[in-house]
Amino acid sequence: MTNLLQKINSPADLRLLSRHQLAPLADELRQYVIDSVSKTGGHLSSNLGTVELTLALHYVFNTPEDRLIWDVGHQTYPHKILTGRRDRMHTLRQWEGISGFPRRDESEYDTFGTAHSSTSISAALGMALAARTKGEDRHAVAIIGDGSMTAGMAFEALNNAGVHEDINLLVVLNDNDMSISPPVGALNRYLARLMSGKFYAAARNVGKSVLPSPVLELAKRFEEHAKGMLVPATMFEEFGFNYIGPIDGHDLESLIPTLQNIRQLKGPQFLHVVTKKGQGYKLAEADPVLYHGPGKFNPAEGIKPSTSAKQTYTQVFGQWLCDMAASDQKLVGITPAMREGSGMVEFEKQFPKRYYDVGIAEQHAVTFAAGLACEGLKPVVAIYSTFLQRAYDQLIHDVALQNLDVTFALDRAGLVGADGATHAGNYDIAYLRCIPNMVVMAASDENECRQMLTTGYNYPGPAAIRYPRGAGIGVKPDTELSSLIIGKGEVRREGNKIAILAFGSMLQPSLHAADILDATVANMRFIKPLDVELLKTLADSHDVLVTVEEGCKMGGAGSAVAEALAEAGICKPLLILGLPDKFIDHGDPALLLSQCGLDSNGIVQAIRERFKLSATSTPAQAA
Amino acid sequence: MTNLLQKINSPADLRLLSRHQLAPLADELRQYVIDSVSKTGGHLSSNLGTVELTLALHYVFNTPEDRLIWDVGHQTYPHKILTGRRDRMHTLRQWEGISGFPRRDESEYDTFGTAHSSTSISAALGMALAARTKGEDRHAVAIIGDGSMTAGMAFEALNNAGVHEDINLLVVLNDNDMSISPPVGALNRYLARLMSGKFYAAARNVGKSVLPSPVLELAKRFEEHAKGMLVPATMFEEFGFNYIGPIDGHDLESLIPTLQNIRQLKGPQFLHVVTKKGQGYKLAEADPVLYHGPGKFNPAEGIKPSTSAKQTYTQVFGQWLCDMAASDQKLVGITPAMREGSGMVEFEKQFPKRYYDVGIAEQHAVTFAAGLACEGLKPVVAIYSTFLQRAYDQLIHDVALQNLDVTFALDRAGLVGADGATHAGNYDIAYLRCIPNMVVMAASDENECRQMLTTGYNYPGPAAIRYPRGAGIGVKPDTELSSLIIGKGEVRREGNKIAILAFGSMLQPSLHAADILDATVANMRFIKPLDVELLKTLADSHDVLVTVEEGCKMGGAGSAVAEALAEAGICKPLLILGLPDKFIDHGDPALLLSQCGLDSNGIVQAIRERFKLSATSTPAQAA
Repeated sequence: MTNLLQKINSPADLRLLSRHQLAPLADELRQYVIDSVSKTGGHLSSNLGTVELTLALHYVFNTPEDRLIWDVGHQTYPHKILTGRRDRMHTLRQWEGISGFPRRDESEYDTFGTAHSSTSISAALGMALAARTKGEDRHAVAIIGDGSMTAGMAFEALNNAGVHEDINLLVVLNDNDMSISPPVGALNRYLARLMSGKFYAAARNVGKSVLPSPVLELAKRFEEHAKGMLVPATMFEEFGFNYIGPIDGHDLESLIPTLQNIRQLKGPQFLHVVTKKGQGYKLAEADPVLYHGPGKFNPAEGIKPSTSAKQTYTQVFGQWLCDMAASDQKLVGITPAMREGSGMVEFEKQFPKRYYDVGIAEQHAVTFAAGLACEGLKPVVAIYSTFLQRAYDQLIHDVALQNLDVTFALDRAGLVGADGATHAGNYDIAYLRCIPNMVVMAASDENECRQMLTTGYNYPGPAAIRYPRGAGIGVKPDTELSSLIIGKGEVRREGNKIAILAFGSMLQPSLHAADILDATVANMRFIKPLDVELLKTLADSHDVLVTVEEGCKMGGAGSAVAEALAEAGICKPLLILGLPDKFIDHGDPALLLSQCGLDSNGIVQAIRERFKLSATSTPAQAA
Repeated sequence: MTNLLQKINSPADLRLLSRHQLAPLADELRQYVIDSVSKTGGHLSSNLGTVELTLALHYVFNTPEDRLIWDVGHQTYPHKILTGRRDRMHTLRQWEGISGFPRRDESEYDTFGTAHSSTSISAALGMALAARTKGEDRHAVAIIGDGSMTAGMAFEALNNAGVHEDINLLVVLNDNDMSISPPVGALNRYLARLMSGKFYAAARNVGKSVLPSPVLELAKRFEEHAKGMLVPATMFEEFGFNYIGPIDGHDLESLIPTLQNIRQLKGPQFLHVVTKKGQGYKLAEADPVLYHGPGKFNPAEGIKPSTSAKQTYTQVFGQWLCDMAASDQKLVGITPAMREGSGMVEFEKQFPKRYYDVGIAEQHAVTFAAGLACEGLKPVVAIYSTFLQRAYDQLIHDVALQNLDVTFALDRAGLVGADGATHAGNYDIAYLRCIPNMVVMAASDENECRQMLTTGYNYPGPAAIRYPRGAGIGVKPDTELSSLIIGKGEVRREGNKIAILAFGSMLQPSLHAADILDATVANMRFIKPLDVELLKTLADSHDVLVTVEEGCKMGGAGSAVAEALAEAGICKPLLILGLPDKFIDHGDPALLLSQCGLDSNGIVQAIRERFKLSATSTPAQAA
């Protein structure tokens, strides 16, 4: 094996290589990705698919002067390795290590932070127009997958970009015919037609723009003649882009000259590149979904089935969905391209006609659910907390305002660990509870999660159930489908002086803290409607109140408690514990929670500090 | 004049008419729209454009069994008149009157509430799939304008709909080449090409699907032969729709047979109809933007220039934008298709190269701004509070998380009056203040609005300035561009016992209330960062605290004050006044505010009730 990769400390080093050195470098780079991801966990399939494309882009474009904007950004490990972060790959997605996504504060080569999909064309257009405004001759290149192209904002950006004829903008469509879940929708079908080679315009455009030759020129003239009044034939040309492709995204001999030619062209360019997720690692090629975002594994053996004893909340949801669907014909399940992540694989198998994967299209997912609900069906939208931000207006304007019966299963609520700030579900309590008609719950264990899903489903209006990423605490859910009383919490521990009002995942650390402090603990269950009666009872019988939630403090559940106390005219010392007003980096979830003071030690310490309790004092001195 | 319209009390009556009666009915209907809108104010141009289309749809489809979903919904006055609400048109957009938009609780013919754009295809697809699921043979028809088609969620819906081959779904593109502002973007250009008649596929498709004839059949075969490998040529066909059109949307003799034929076809149908905004009323035809949403006017004379002495906040923003742009070359202004509404007409004139109308594309607008900011330009995004809900994730993920220097000018914050609940800007305080890095301000008068815009602009991170719809209080803004100190409020009235903390538009009624109660009044200015020092000072020197804001109480500015008091360990009676936790109907803004207790009387009354003050008691008894 050669040792080219060790010499590449920046793309400038890469650009010193000769063309024939690039293929062996690609092999090294691919192996490096496999080795490092197998040790750290992270995204694999997507990164194996972009090895050659990354090499080619940095080889042809003058990065970082030219701007690469990677859509989603989970395919940027080769990019990170080539841009000075090779020796930090072992810290990937760990606390104080490098991020699994591009970050502006990590490298000048990370020109735009991504993670949520479909932002890259908008950002690249902004950069391209800024360059034009400032008279700078730089290129902006958005690299976007076919899955990400299904989100509306990518189309908004194409629509806006296509009218600017004098910008240095290149959109590279990295078409691997797969987002995280298998592809859905008309666009994917269309792209497949383009790729099939039957599509006339594709070859024509490669000819027109990139590989001029007398023969092709002649062919083109003949073709124009034959077509008569026909105007450009690919959708991307309708949008004002010069469409080029499709070309093989693993063939450096296609990629590099094509990119070199494109770099000379003015105006919005669209290059259609075909790649394969998992390319070069047989196991990932065979099952790119399994290898989408694995934990640590042995590359020689591949991923072993998980032996975790505890169910994840995602699994609890998946089982509930199947059980409820079996008991109610009206149930339909909706996912914006997160079949696996949201635990809907089994549901799709059992109820294929009631399963809708709408693509990466959160806005449509929610309004589509509203339409179904208007006709008496009962849609369950399974969505991560962070992605519901994408459909906030639809939730307000289409669902809540019409008081429609839509259930939102909010996975990944609170801190998410390795994926970091972009994926954190820290804001849903604040952004949901201010919306009229909403019922909002937070699950404290697996069984309660199941009960809450049933409660929200049976409630004839909009309801959201938030639950954390990952494993629960080991409580086996009941088999029956039982509801909770809406707006009622429960006292879980009777103590003295101090009443801790715990929301969702914070119940367990609160109980542990209460054992140390002899505090009362209420499992509040409902953020909205808040159990104001319970709150008043606790306020009456305790000296101080403490709220604990895994969500932003500003506007959160503690804030709701403060409002209710004010409304009730109760003046009582109140300590609000939750996530601080800052974006929290990636890292081990337990570590992050501890840093935020949201483990039992942190809760004990915060209560002692705020109420001036010494470590040995009894709660009697608390007030 | 005939008197057909008086006999139409439901579409069933309409369907009893003969075809030749429809044209005179259309004339009556058009006149009725002009007469009633001139008396009530409301949307005009859009409704004049849909007279014939509305007649034809209700004539051909079996409403309400077949579902009409009107995108945006401001073109539904003919629909309302034909569906039993003719005699209530004089109550349009007034308190307890009928809404200016479709509402499910107003009529069974209003199958989906709309107002924000681009939701109709998603909702209609939900309804169509529900019908299929339930075995009901009904049609779902989405009527969507070309402006609304530029929003991403319309594309998400097309992409998802096109794969369902067995549904009764019709999308009617009402192409009037104008959203509210003139059209922008590649899609509009594309539609113009389709309309120009040069586009080959259009005629072909009319032939193929709707008007089969031997001649056209022959032409089609010849054409297929000539084309060789070419596949369908309109974008909408690529999405899996059967494209038909374009046809003249004012010609009932085209509309009715075409719709009758389409109604027999299975699978997703797409009818391209060309209409003219303002059709049939010369003044509106000549200036559809002016007649988009007029107040009352004399139809014979037309709209007279406004003689209002007071500037609107929109005008204050528009002037500030021009002034700041003149002083800083880095400023760029962005609007999602709201040039007039956001007060950017003059800015576009003066600085055409720094003005970006991105279409109805809020998501793209915000991420595009982020891209510009990455390159050192200083984007100002002018957007209504209610529409920023559409770009919530982009604000969080692309702007705030990267702490980029983007200024958000939030118009129409708080209640908006005649447009009602769908357009109310009631949630921005709650949904913005929970996001790290944000600075959030609320303007209490015109000059302060200007100062806040300058403050937000000069602040090197994301900042939002909220200001109400309509006229200010009559304060003439300074000419200079001066900043406020971030996070600092001011005491505007010194009083006793009671301290009122007023936010934004609530300063004036708070001052009036304070005169009656001899209360102190602070103009808090900043929602985030909150002036905690001022709050502590006021708490120290007063017996009770009152917060007043024109925003939802849940999670709002009063909630922020409650959090800060808890954090500071201050136990003090606190009364939070703001908008209640419900959606508030359309009506006169002053009336609505009064109903919510947010005028001076309401504030006085709420304080007296809460703190048990008699109307004659002095504030000394307040605590």
